[in-house]
Amino acid sequence: MSSKPLTWVPIGGCGEVGKNMMMFEYDDAILIIDAGVMFPESDMLGVDAVIPDYNFLKDKRHKVRGIVITHGHEDHTGAIHYVVRDFPNVPIYATPLTRGLLEVKLREAKLLDRVQLHTIKVGDEVTIGPFHIETFRMCHSIPDNIGMGIKTPAGLVVLSGDFKFDHTPVDGKPSDFAKLAELGGRGVLALFADSTNAERAGSTPSEREIEPTFEHIFRDAEGRIIVATFASLISRVQQVVNVCDLYGRKLAIAGTSMGENVKMAQKMGYLTIPPGMLVRLEDAIKMPPHEVAIVATGTQGEPSAVLARMAVGKHPLINVVPGDTIVMSAHPIPGNEEYVHRVINRLFQKGAEVFYDPVAKVHVSGHASQEEQKLLISLIRPKFFIPVHGELRMLRAHARLAREMGIPAENIFVVENGTPIRFHEGKAEQLPRLPGGYVFVDGSGVGDVERSVIREREALARDGFVVVVIHRDAQGKLAKPPEIITRGFIYFKESDAFMRAMAQTVSEALRDLKPGASEDAIKNRTIDALNRLIYSETRRKPMIIPIVS
Amino acid sequence: MSSKPLTWVPIGGCGEVGKNMMMFEYDDAILIIDAGVMFPESDMLGVDAVIPDYNFLKDKRHKVRGIVITHGHEDHTGAIHYVVRDFPNVPIYATPLTRGLLEVKLREAKLLDRVQLHTIKVGDEVTIGPFHIETFRMCHSIPDNIGMGIKTPAGLVVLSGDFKFDHTPVDGKPSDFAKLAELGGRGVLALFADSTNAERAGSTPSEREIEPTFEHIFRDAEGRIIVATFASLISRVQQVVNVCDLYGRKLAIAGTSMGENVKMAQKMGYLTIPPGMLVRLEDAIKMPPHEVAIVATGTQGEPSAVLARMAVGKHPLINVVPGDTIVMSAHPIPGNEEYVHRVINRLFQKGAEVFYDPVAKVHVSGHASQEEQKLLISLIRPKFFIPVHGELRMLRAHARLAREMGIPAENIFVVENGTPIRFHEGKAEQLPRLPGGYVFVDGSGVGDVERSVIREREALARDGFVVVVIHRDAQGKLAKPPEIITRGFIYFKESDAFMRAMAQTVSEALRDLKPGASEDAIKNRTIDALNRLIYSETRRKPMIIPIVS
Repeated sequence: MSSKPLTWVPIGGCGEVGKNMMMFEYDDAILIIDAGVMFPESDMLGVDAVIPDYNFLKDKRHKVRGIVITHGHEDHTGAIHYVVRDFPNVPIYATPLTRGLLEVKLREAKLLDRVQLHTIKVGDEVTIGPFHIETFRMCHSIPDNIGMGIKTPAGLVVLSGDFKFDHTPVDGKPSDFAKLAELGGRGVLALFADSTNAERAGSTPSEREIEPTFEHIFRDAEGRIIVATFASLISRVQQVVNVCDLYGRKLAIAGTSMGENVKMAQKMGYLTIPPGMLVRLEDAIKMPPHEVAIVATGTQGEPSAVLARMAVGKHPLINVVPGDTIVMSAHPIPGNEEYVHRVINRLFQKGAEVFYDPVAKVHVSGHASQEEQKLLISLIRPKFFIPVHGELRMLRAHARLAREMGIPAENIFVVENGTPIRFHEGKAEQLPRLPGGYVFVDGSGVGDVERSVIREREALARDGFVVVVIHRDAQGKLAKPPEIITRGFIYFKESDAFMRAMAQTVSEALRDLKPGASEDAIKNRTIDALNRLIYSETRRKPMIIPIVS
Repeated sequence: MSSKPLTWVPIGGCGEVGKNMMMFEYDDAILIIDAGVMFPESDMLGVDAVIPDYNFLKDKRHKVRGIVITHGHEDHTGAIHYVVRDFPNVPIYATPLTRGLLEVKLREAKLLDRVQLHTIKVGDEVTIGPFHIETFRMCHSIPDNIGMGIKTPAGLVVLSGDFKFDHTPVDGKPSDFAKLAELGGRGVLALFADSTNAERAGSTPSEREIEPTFEHIFRDAEGRIIVATFASLISRVQQVVNVCDLYGRKLAIAGTSMGENVKMAQKMGYLTIPPGMLVRLEDAIKMPPHEVAIVATGTQGEPSAVLARMAVGKHPLINVVPGDTIVMSAHPIPGNEEYVHRVINRLFQKGAEVFYDPVAKVHVSGHASQEEQKLLISLIRPKFFIPVHGELRMLRAHARLAREMGIPAENIFVVENGTPIRFHEGKAEQLPRLPGGYVFVDGSGVGDVERSVIREREALARDGFVVVVIHRDAQGKLAKPPEIITRGFIYFKESDAFMRAMAQTVSEALRDLKPGASEDAIKNRTIDALNRLIYSETRRKPMIIPIVS
């Protein structure tokens, strides 16, 4: 056993620890796992995406030996074009489907010719510097997902990756229990395990359990059927294909990302569609409704996605009408509930029948619940246990399970993003948190929107703004009454009197100003006087911007 | 039987039908039921509350004979001060606890001396014009809640009010099944029933079912215990009192509204606290932690409420520390999940132990699930069925239950707020929707924030704004370079170059402008040029406000 330490760091996203990215460092070598993005939280106003803050790695750029992507979901792949730009020559390892999905992204970003992509098959072993990686199959809601045993001079660590123990997965390929047991038998220093569903008792149902519901829905629907799901949920698409086959419906795909993923998965053999079943959306809408099913994106209620546009009549091809049956085959990601429910209400408003959880069993989670999490711990029997891939509350719930299973509390580490854990000579310790957190992406800007800009947006969202233009004459006196311009503050068509009152208030506040008064003095007086008036009349606090000319 | 029609109208709130207010009209008489507010949805930016739009009633002011408030929750009482101002001489009827809670509100609004409040006891009958009202007990998460049978010349209608069938309620007073059966036996024209949990199979657990969990938590906690719940959830406070009594803890109340409600409920006999148990918060914090429990508000993650302030160290008296145990005894209201989870994460971050649903059974819903809803329909056996108190999706689920129970589809009316249903000679028909919807309250303004203002706030929240000040000389030429001011757009400390580029772009766009050009022409050119530059550089679309001086 070596005398050098192994350090692990979960790298930030919003809230979920080590979900989007993590790294191991041993001696002069760094291994990166995953490169994902997070959806912004609802008060990260105007932010399009959040990427992990891996700035601390840039100083150590020369040490980074490889990047392994565990599976093809956005929260594990979506930052790949940023990572590739920052670590241009580092080889990237992924299983075939994951690689296919990465290539779609890299092609879009015009980076495909600048990366070294290596295909590994599930079960392959690969050595990256001091890290000897043994991959194994773990079920998840996408095929070709891997867990990893990583042999290092400091010991053997195991990463569950995102997983569930589905004994009857759609692709017929269950998690590799034998490998897990074998790793466990070798003595595992640390297990990093998926905490997503640590608050849920029991076991997550198999993907198969939704099939009877789908069959009922397809049997009874007299019109068109639209199944909404995630663009990367290839196995769900396979299930829709199967039930279309059973009831003789054609299938069309709505949504660019969904279309590309289906094409790629089909080409690579991860999706089997009978010849002639797939039709173009343009053709599908001309066929008798009961002969067609459509798979679409937009399960999170995103206003710009296919489903929401259909629900409000803004989709160029499809307008939801009475007789349509909609299946929401996904759960809302926490924070999206309100938008998802709104879309469901709108679909009902349009006269459609809507099936969604909990009124119908049309989705199951892709993550292990408590009984599966316990089984994983039993198989691996690690010395140290580190719950990952969850918010703090989920990690705590997972840690509680581990304690109940006999792992001593001092061997369990619940840490936040940016907090390293160092393993050395069979011991583990938590190090001080590294500076940094996460980085906002807004439009094409990465990191140019800071917390301070978000705070301005919050203030603007709450009460809008008031611009006051103050015209001075040569003597420094008011040349004419101040101009007032507001947005997001009050409904100006009914507020003429108040607009005049604001102008009047500013005029009075500036009346006895001395000739040589500074611009700042004028601005401060204006802001004070307007704040007082506005708050006393409206109890609001719009942002006030005086302009002195 | 009369030949005149009876009309029912659910009056708007956000999404939930007839939850906050409804009315019946017969001949020259109108009866109003409830006067509540809704929490704004998360994209109603800056809006503090949403009140039902009862403007259409103002023309019929003279017809309004009475207002009955079914129970003391905010979503049934919170608009009372607006309603009282608009219908100043209309008598208001409420049970004692409900009246007490209304008085707290009316006193705050300085309206208490301007209203006619009438106390009715549960089970009382009261005649208001042509409406003969028979009240009866229905369990809910607050005592003194009523359902109503309303005898009118057009027939007998029954309103469930918010309800659950709890056979072992905390106050020992279950729903009045005998009265429900008796009403059913008389022949009911229409049932208006609570749809809130129509998506949930089975029965809602009794309030009692959380008691074992509370006992475990109190038995095992070695430090302070903080139970967070709704300010009006009096029966939950009683349960905390009971378990404090069992384990010898003192109890303190944090939160003004909670404190007032507890005082009032205690005075009126709805809450029994052993002498000496209640201590002031100031004293509680000086006692040994294991001798104290605190009841607090803030279960919805509201940043200004007690719990969230404790979680971030901004409460003047209480800072959450390791050893504290927090019980979240409430469910997130849909839309609040993200904020609630954030507070839970922060409490864990502070080192507290946190119990919340689903990891511990510390809350049960106050609304009936499907089996209870079916039982209600069986007891009442109405001719017409109108699901209320829910979003469209819940009403649809409730309607499905009613159909399964044999009520013909054409006798079930799923309508939205503002859509009247007219009952006449044993028939029912849906009338065209009335104009109006709901009214935003922002600060002290009621209705002065319109959809257009919200849309401006949305745009500002997304990308902020850019003000361009264009100074012309006497010849109409640019007197100096344009001034650029931005907020919520980019982090200006790092964007000097871009600020200069914007000014430069505007100068160039205006260079060949003809001397007599109109202000509008200048503004349009400025907006076009800046939009192009900004979008191509940042992919953002801030609001652009040109000011020509």
